[in-house]
Amino acid sequence: MNSARRYTLTLSCPDRVGIVAAVSGFVAQHNGWIVEASYHTDQETRRFFMRQEILADSLPFDVVEFHARFSELAGKFNMDWRVSDSAQKKRVVILVSKQDHCLNDLLHRWRSGELQVDIPCVISNHEDLRGFVEWHGIPFHYVPMQDKAGHDKSTAFEKIAALFEQQQGDTLVLARFMQILPPSLCQRYAGRVINIHHSFLPSFAGARPYHQAYQRGVKLIGATCHYVSEELDAGPIIEQDTMRIDHGDTVEDMVRYGKDIEKAVLARGLRYHVEDRVLVCGNKTIVFR
Amino acid sequence: MNSARRYTLTLSCPDRVGIVAAVSGFVAQHNGWIVEASYHTDQETRRFFMRQEILADSLPFDVVEFHARFSELAGKFNMDWRVSDSAQKKRVVILVSKQDHCLNDLLHRWRSGELQVDIPCVISNHEDLRGFVEWHGIPFHYVPMQDKAGHDKSTAFEKIAALFEQQQGDTLVLARFMQILPPSLCQRYAGRVINIHHSFLPSFAGARPYHQAYQRGVKLIGATCHYVSEELDAGPIIEQDTMRIDHGDTVEDMVRYGKDIEKAVLARGLRYHVEDRVLVCGNKTIVFR
Amino acid sequence: MNSARRYTLTLSCPDRVGIVAAVSGFVAQHNGWIVEASYHTDQETRRFFMRQEILADSLPFDVVEFHARFSELAGKFNMDWRVSDSAQKKRVVILVSKQDHCLNDLLHRWRSGELQVDIPCVISNHEDLRGFVEWHGIPFHYVPMQDKAGHDKSTAFEKIAALFEQQQGDTLVLARFMQILPPSLCQRYAGRVINIHHSFLPSFAGARPYHQAYQRGVKLIGATCHYVSEELDAGPIIEQDTMRIDHGDTVEDMVRYGKDIEKAVLARGLRYHVEDRVLVCGNKTIVFR
Amino acid sequence: MNSARRYTLTLSCPDRVGIVAAVSGFVAQHNGWIVEASYHTDQETRRFFMRQEILADSLPFDVVEFHARFSELAGKFNMDWRVSDSAQKKRVVILVSKQDHCLNDLLHRWRSGELQVDIPCVISNHEDLRGFVEWHGIPFHYVPMQDKAGHDKSTAFEKIAALFEQQQGDTLVLARFMQILPPSLCQRYAGRVINIHHSFLPSFAGARPYHQAYQRGVKLIGATCHYVSEELDAGPIIEQDTMRIDHGDTVEDMVRYGKDIEKAVLARGLRYHVEDRVLVCGNKTIVFR
Repeated sequence: MNSARRYTLTLSCPDRVGIVAAVSGFVAQHNGWIVEASYHTDQETRRFFMRQEILADSLPFDVVEFHARFSELAGKFNMDWRVSDSAQKKRVVILVSKQDHCLNDLLHRWRSGELQVDIPCVISNHEDLRGFVEWHGIPFHYVPMQDKAGHDKSTAFEKIAALFEQQQGDTLVLARFMQILPPSLCQRYAGRVINIHHSFLPSFAGARPYHQAYQRGVKLIGATCHYVSEELDAGPIIEQDTMRIDHGDTVEDMVRYGKDIEKAVLARGLRYHVEDRVLVCGNKTIVFR
Repeated sequence: MNSARRYTLTLSCPDRVGIVAAVSGFVAQHNGWIVEASYHTDQETRRFFMRQEILADSLPFDVVEFHARFSELAGKFNMDWRVSDSAQKKRVVILVSKQDHCLNDLLHRWRSGELQVDIPCVISNHEDLRGFVEWHGIPFHYVPMQDKAGHDKSTAFEKIAALFEQQQGDTLVLARFMQILPPSLCQRYAGRVINIHHSFLPSFAGARPYHQAYQRGVKLIGATCHYVSEELDAGPIIEQDTMRIDHGDTVEDMVRYGKDIEKAVLARGLRYHVEDRVLVCGNKTIVFR
Repeated sequence: MNSARRYTLTLSCPDRVGIVAAVSGFVAQHNGWIVEASYHTDQETRRFFMRQEILADSLPFDVVEFHARFSELAGKFNMDWRVSDSAQKKRVVILVSKQDHCLNDLLHRWRSGELQVDIPCVISNHEDLRGFVEWHGIPFHYVPMQDKAGHDKSTAFEKIAALFEQQQGDTLVLARFMQILPPSLCQRYAGRVINIHHSFLPSFAGARPYHQAYQRGVKLIGATCHYVSEELDAGPIIEQDTMRIDHGDTVEDMVRYGKDIEKAVLARGLRYHVEDRVLVCGNKTIVFR
Repeated sequence: MNSARRYTLTLSCPDRVGIVAAVSGFVAQHNGWIVEASYHTDQETRRFFMRQEILADSLPFDVVEFHARFSELAGKFNMDWRVSDSAQKKRVVILVSKQDHCLNDLLHRWRSGELQVDIPCVISNHEDLRGFVEWHGIPFHYVPMQDKAGHDKSTAFEKIAALFEQQQGDTLVLARFMQILPPSLCQRYAGRVINIHHSFLPSFAGARPYHQAYQRGVKLIGATCHYVSEELDAGPIIEQDTMRIDHGDTVEDMVRYGKDIEKAVLARGLRYHVEDRVLVCGNKTIVFR
């Protein structure tokens, strides 16, 4: 990847002959320079998926004009499609509890320029991480799950949603948030909420996965980055990884080692997402790395 | 590991002070040369596990005498223990169906001297692999699951058990055997029957794990080598590994790639077992690599 | 990958706008169904590389006709190009010495249908592996490096080249052959001779790489599959991998473990090559997996 | 590993019968509870290496008394030995330039309690990271390589050494410091200075290793954590790892991906070091993980 400004076109449509030719033809006709292109046909649904990155400066129009001009072709092929501009950074709101290894990792990638997003705010149900977040110049919002006025979790989640809307967030990241998102929010933000689960799903969904792994005596532990859906830890998987452990490792060791996979897997998954590399197909993802 | 003859002592007992000193003292008193030593205490049961390899030539007695002399100390610590002689190769009987990648791998390791075991016979419910097995000079027994006389699976498994006994087999390997061992045999040969399952257990136990993996959209596939127990694919895990796949891989691709993990994981697991590196602790294993 | 017959088009040319559109347009105009497509632009040479797989049955002509019709377009873009037919299997000649782990692995993949090539013969400077090769129904040629008539290595290599030509070999695989190909053959068969070297190149080129690795105290060992060039172990790398070792592993252990990486890396590299997934760019490769 | 206070005994001596028995006997005689024990004999030097962790509370004396009592036995076996107390944290001084991914990672592990060391100060030849370091409450010292008074690098390094001495540092970590330590300091602090090099050594020693890797066309990149010696990037290797790249990755991509291996490898290597798990044997290390 180089760093020049580019438009990223992603689309899916029923598979047929001529899609690549039509899209490439459209781009070529306007002298567009394609710097990355990926395709995939899902075997079961016979649906075609495509992603192209085009140098912005090679086209004689902006992304709004691109949208207008491409619509006819998109309609002809019955495409589900989107075009984004790399100059328009995604707005990522991060939810955390007390554990900060994922937050620390994401904020470092952000401040070093590796993760090219805006982070309008961090929201937490604990005050612990305020100092670290604010040191970065990022607003920190404390939203307790239960407050003194007797409000419950649903009120807290409505506050979170309100903050997300108000900040015009594109993506909500649960960076070891330890709270289960209510179904209404899962639906409202489908494909926009990313969670990191500390097991190699579908093994050990739910609470205390390292304890489950220890009990089962597995020889590798893992982590999974996935879109949140109404069913707990069952949404479309974006990225996973595993690492070797052995009989000498306690649950505490697993928790400690596991942090390194969790943050790596979340960072990769989030990067794929904000670079429009992830297309959802049923309960699966296509990741054009 | 070097190749000199050695005695391997493995034991477990309730943890207390002085076990290592007592065992090392016993060996040192007879001038025994320890070339490898490993220890582990299980946190939950407070049970201590130990393995030592001693150069056979450094001791003034053979393994029978070792057994006799060590018994008193073993009794004092209430040990569950065993001593084996590397000159006495383990006898491994292999069960296969039609898929031969694991068999091919094991027989190559055997004929190149890497896997130091005797293979008194290979048993299959299909005739397909007779030629390949017999080329190695290894007897091949065809035991169909259902025969013309109307016998059923239980008869077939009794024949398999009879062959195993008759050959004085130490270990039975299900090298992608595709048949479920009856509970009676699982009990009779507990800790002596090794299976290779083509998933990263506990995910995708049972039939067609690659199809299950494809449906769930996981980003890694795996294989698991485990001791067979009465509950399907739920016995103590000896070894596991995973490999990366992506959205472009079909079930057929997974089946093909997966073979490489299956054979690697089975080969490692079997080697650990025949070198007395695996000690069972409840439904888990300690593997002193 | 599915198993339907397909034509594979690979090409490279100076990068410019419109190449993908032109090629996709050509295919679409004849109603061709693209099932896999990959692109890459080399940053240094500004050269564009492309590979497309098209379902053979979707086109109204055969591969000869494809060649004829595509030539004009290819000329216009100044392409270096090739089109192959999956129904026409590549002819792979294998060279071995005494070590047989790579040979065993390749022949198993061949006889199980995983590696879709023809193997017209195996050539060796030792008689040891004749029986195993001939069991597969594959001719085995014994070509000693020095014979009783006093002939030397160059005579032996001319015999090998003659056999390769006579069998109309496409690819020559050095499956742990342990002899250095003379420069004349390296030149004559550039891009067609594949070697497996038992180190993670460029570390430990030349003789006894595991001994070199042991002396240096590295914590991982590796293997490298590469095209043979005149400079020893310095040709374009196709595939590599590593595995963890530790201080307890002797050179003999490394040799033993290393075999598993060597055969995996060679098998992957050879598959990429015979599926026309490898394009050479200077001393580097583009591998469209 | 659990968190109870413990004494760690590490030693090496010429190999002979009875070492384990003698040491274990010494510990058992004082009722010491061994929680971890590892042994290794180097094949070339016939030297024996050993590490034992003993629960501090199980012994009736402190580490000074341990030292006094063990000396006789140590002398008898001609041991090179050391005993440390986990309650006495190692003092780690960190050197950085402008790149902060390793520093960020180490400071996070330190403030989360995962890395149990004291960090008396961070030293840098640039001011850039002062704010981040001081936010942690850790003193930051700016030592430019060339100052306005015309002093050169050797003066700067003497200042660094003075700070290290003054802070009673145990270990000096070059966390992507980008400056070469003068031979005098390499000698003075042999076995106490740890560097992270951004390649899989011995490949690509020296400057710009990712550029070298890109030029050679390797398929994996790596990182190496090693003790600094007078010969550049040639000291004893503590830990290494690799990750897969492909032809599409630019040097900038490698730099970006590589950071994740660098910080993981440095963190593991440093942890092994401060937990007294690393014993140096010639130019190699024994790492008792």
